[in-house]
Amino acid sequence: MKIIVVGAEGDVGRAVCAELSGRHEIIRVGRTSGDVQADLADRSSIEAMYRRIGKVGAVVSAAGSVHFAALTEFMEAQFMLGLTNKVMGQINLVLAGLNHVEDGGSFTLTSGVLDRDPIRMGAGAATANGALGGFVVGAAIEMPRGLRVNVVSPGLLETSVERYGSWFPGHVPVPAARVGLAYAKSVDGAITGKVIIVE
Amino acid sequence: MKIIVVGAEGDVGRAVCAELSGRHEIIRVGRTSGDVQADLADRSSIEAMYRRIGKVGAVVSAAGSVHFAALTEFMEAQFMLGLTNKVMGQINLVLAGLNHVEDGGSFTLTSGVLDRDPIRMGAGAATANGALGGFVVGAAIEMPRGLRVNVVSPGLLETSVERYGSWFPGHVPVPAARVGLAYAKSVDGAITGKVIIVE
Repeated sequence: MKIIVVGAEGDVGRAVCAELSGRHEIIRVGRTSGDVQADLADRSSIEAMYRRIGKVGAVVSAAGSVHFAALTEFMEAQFMLGLTNKVMGQINLVLAGLNHVEDGGSFTLTSGVLDRDPIRMGAGAATANGALGGFVVGAAIEMPRGLRVNVVSPGLLETSVERYGSWFPGHVPVPAARVGLAYAKSVDGAITGKVIIVE
Repeated sequence: MKIIVVGAEGDVGRAVCAELSGRHEIIRVGRTSGDVQADLADRSSIEAMYRRIGKVGAVVSAAGSVHFAALTEFMEAQFMLGLTNKVMGQINLVLAGLNHVEDGGSFTLTSGVLDRDPIRMGAGAATANGALGGFVVGAAIEMPRGLRVNVVSPGLLETSVERYGSWFPGHVPVPAARVGLAYAKSVDGAITGKVIIVE
């Protein structure tokens, strides 16, 4: 199967590619890296990506920005970054891609642990994660041609501990290989409308 | 206790006021109606509302707009309405209100049933509802001075069936009085960071 992986160079994207690349053809997409460039913040950039790549069997997103700040200092514009970029950007990947994925194919988005196991500074991320969980439930029942949509909600990856671990006191890091398997469950499996928790 | 109810004239707002007005002083807020006017879409309007009303014991929001459309026809701007108005508007009510609620007081927001029991045309609402659920989990652990934050997620109200019932096939409508009780649980109780489901 031909699979687009947006955010292929990130910790999650690498886990996705490691799991799927043995049996599928991966097209790596990044804002500045990868086989094809696209910017989640820009719907027209996403549309251009789909036109360039053509039909695929699945789309995986492991991308999206959120701002981290103390609740009492969070500015509206900072809060909106998560809603426009991580949420609307990934949703645009679905909306713009409905005609570019083969029958029965899938979209697999990425949220994260913070809407069920919160940390300080994480209210923006928790909001974005919850939004993506709601989206897949709502969107799955309306997908045309047997298309499917799920979101993977991974805990802090072992590969991310060095950079972000101090923000996540007491969180048990998850091996990247287990995170990769969650994407296989969505891409190669048959489920839809699910939040796939990895912890 | 002095309680601000934003969206007091809607079906949910009326249920909130019916439950709380017997034992609390309610300040009804609407965009064009009520004791005080404020527009959730405009952070400065929310700030002006708080300055005008002064300190309160609790803030209840039963307001926020979302767009309904078929998934295959959803435009980005339509999708963003839910994220800016229902989500960011209600979050702004919390962020702007942190210094206007007395110690131990509460914010109670409103989401809805569509992120757990979806309907056609409802992907935007499902996304907004999920976002609000994530927000209260993330925000609750950072609230200063014992402030609390919850979100009520009511099913279709009996009082809304005439207008919206045909959009919700098979949904069991919930009595407005039961919806009102959910707000009492947040306002008069001690819980925080919870999605209070009414079904």
